[in-house]
Amino acid sequence: MCFARQIMDRVGDKWSIAIVHTLGRDTLRFTELKRAIDGISQRMLTATLRGLERDGLVERTVHPVVPPRVDYRLTELGLTLLGTVCELANWAVNHADEIAGARADYDARPDTA
Amino acid sequence: MCFARQIMDRVGDKWSIAIVHTLGRDTLRFTELKRAIDGISQRMLTATLRGLERDGLVERTVHPVVPPRVDYRLTELGLTLLGTVCELANWAVNHADEIAGARADYDARPDTA
Repeated sequence: MCFARQIMDRVGDKWSIAIVHTLGRDTLRFTELKRAIDGISQRMLTATLRGLERDGLVERTVHPVVPPRVDYRLTELGLTLLGTVCELANWAVNHADEIAGARADYDARPDTA
Repeated sequence: MCFARQIMDRVGDKWSIAIVHTLGRDTLRFTELKRAIDGISQRMLTATLRGLERDGLVERTVHPVVPPRVDYRLTELGLTLLGTVCELANWAVNHADEIAGARADYDARPDTA
């Protein structure tokens, strides 16, 4: 599998997209991210954040306070991906009605009932 | 979960992205799609194609010949998504080296070894 396709599999993953989109607005802590992203499990958020950190898209900062505070933000590289992710989000909002209509038509078809 | 996020989960799925990207070049048969998309199983290709068809992004055509020929192509709505998907692919190609470097640095860190 070519390396670019490998990367697309990573960033083209729904949880990666949701995290990049959410961090696009702010630097957030783990619990804030978990609350902001509907349906993501603790395990999935941990693994996806680690993958994004490894790819250089997200920066994890441990603040030397008691108790220790950890937050996450997009890196410069992560910010270059944000534009495409926001475009995908806008596409979804702009075409929601057409897709809802297509789903209703599909579900009403005799061969798909 | 808001409807737009639901749609993003659908189209922000790596297999949906790979199928839309591949169909962006041509109308293809199932076996041609399977061959073109590295790592996708028959079951996953069938389910993802059905999801994209239901969302109105892909059109499935059964040609009345013997043996029956079935092919898939992007609809007008699917073509509106192609631009964003190609941008994601270009982003992956353009930033492959930076990501490879970030991964090497991450893997070399004592706390991640």
